[in-house]
Amino acid sequence: MRITFLGTGAAGGVPLFGCECAACANAKKYSVFSREPCSALIESGANRILIDGGLMDLHKRFAPGELDAILLTHFHPDHVQGLFHLRWGKGPSIPVLIPPDPDGCADLFRHPGMLDFSPQEAFTAFEIGPLKVTPVPLIHSKPTFGYVFEPAGGPAFAYLTDTRGLPRETRDFLQTMKPEGLAIDCSFPPSNQPKGHNDWALALDCIKAVGPARAWLIHISHDLDNWRLSTNPELPAHIRVAQDGDRVDLTPGTVKPGHE
Amino acid sequence: MRITFLGTGAAGGVPLFGCECAACANAKKYSVFSREPCSALIESGANRILIDGGLMDLHKRFAPGELDAILLTHFHPDHVQGLFHLRWGKGPSIPVLIPPDPDGCADLFRHPGMLDFSPQEAFTAFEIGPLKVTPVPLIHSKPTFGYVFEPAGGPAFAYLTDTRGLPRETRDFLQTMKPEGLAIDCSFPPSNQPKGHNDWALALDCIKAVGPARAWLIHISHDLDNWRLSTNPELPAHIRVAQDGDRVDLTPGTVKPGHE
Ligand SMILES: [Mn+2]
Ligand SMILES: [Mn+2]
Ligand SMILES: [Mn+2]
Ligand SMILES: [Mn+2]
Ligand SMILES: [Zn+2]
Ligand SMILES: [Zn+2]
Repeated sequence: MRITFLGTGAAGGVPLFGCECAACANAKKYSVFSREPCSALIESGANRILIDGGLMDLHKRFAPGELDAILLTHFHPDHVQGLFHLRWGKGPSIPVLIPPDPDGCADLFRHPGMLDFSPQEAFTAFEIGPLKVTPVPLIHSKPTFGYVFEPAGGPAFAYLTDTRGLPRETRDFLQTMKPEGLAIDCSFPPSNQPKGHNDWALALDCIKAVGPARAWLIHISHDLDNWRLSTNPELPAHIRVAQDGDRVDLTPGTVKPGHE
Repeated sequence: MRITFLGTGAAGGVPLFGCECAACANAKKYSVFSREPCSALIESGANRILIDGGLMDLHKRFAPGELDAILLTHFHPDHVQGLFHLRWGKGPSIPVLIPPDPDGCADLFRHPGMLDFSPQEAFTAFEIGPLKVTPVPLIHSKPTFGYVFEPAGGPAFAYLTDTRGLPRETRDFLQTMKPEGLAIDCSFPPSNQPKGHNDWALALDCIKAVGPARAWLIHISHDLDNWRLSTNPELPAHIRVAQDGDRVDLTPGTVKPGHE
């Protein structure tokens, strides 16, 4: 199973429009530090799964028929805004697996176009090609799922955004299944009362609780990047801050970050 | 006053994702024929007004402070989808003038960020720098305004999308003020019962009723482009199908399309 972090940014991304902070200046100068809306591609054998639809050029990034499914974590615009355009396309419909949310976003449910929305149930696994996928509830201002991917016989990977901490049942589930890789929301620098998202400390707590071999921080804001630039905080060796384009191959017995 | 047609496409644009029609193939081969979401830039002296926010790279196209205002025709996603991202920016807030629509789109009203939404009243003119702007009601599935721009002493320009025909009061208003330039929705090839938008015949009827010196067809679908490729329909000399990037300088006494 291969994971590509297509986007690693919080809403607004990095650089943030009009922002002059050190992190945004850095990202403007070196595009490698820029962060698009949070999204990842999961590849396993011939199967391709897109997590979230917030990238605004989805219709240009992917060829028709290239995606076997899109999994949505939730219906905030930064996770679905690219679907407003993509849906009007032609060709075979794209299965879009979603948390149960009667509202969706704007008129996506009323005019799904080529998207085939399919609400899922927490902890009820489904299969996409060779992958078993389990949706797990998160703690956010909308019904939100993380997704756990298990290739037959290979190491598992959990993708958890947007969330502030983890519900007890989700933590229990993850502690039992022990995914080898974990990507988790780390929107903010250390803060007193982070809202809707993890800050640095909460994200590290969640990783500790789950105990993966390797972890990646995602949904990064310019505030977090800025704080990192000014404080250069240490991270345990098995955790890294993901960057757009980072690619990870999870193969049995090894967890190699492709970026290093 | 200078008008730039930044985008001239109907929802889904041209090429349409996954479409193999002649028009989409042509647009894939020659990007000059591609159509982004319908949007225009109005420049008058030092003032810059953006019509509609459907372009998905607004945060990359414009520098902070560059836009004096955004005018929204209505809250369908293809006219606002670029605002979901732009709103999170920093710096002076951007006035966004809108038709009265209590719903807006998704959570734009709840989380306006740097956007300062300001509902307008039909036929009640406002001023942006040297321009007098009058919102005129259109006929669409959401509350929708066209906008008429009048520079002091210069020729007027009306931008009318999305609409199917014109309300009587809007037609009367335009017949009285006789704008020299008119851009109007022409989404479909000739059809029996066009829904929500003009087809070719209705668009030409509207132009005839208003009687501008020059007119541009906008909000063009791949179906219209495809029909034009196969039938090569004639247009009166003062009407043209706009292309993305077309630029028009309206100066007193002359109406010169910049593209020719
Ligand atoms: Mn988010
Ligand atoms: Mn969210
Ligand atoms: Mn439209
Ligand atoms: Mn519309
Ligand atoms: Zn910044
Ligand atoms: Zn087509």
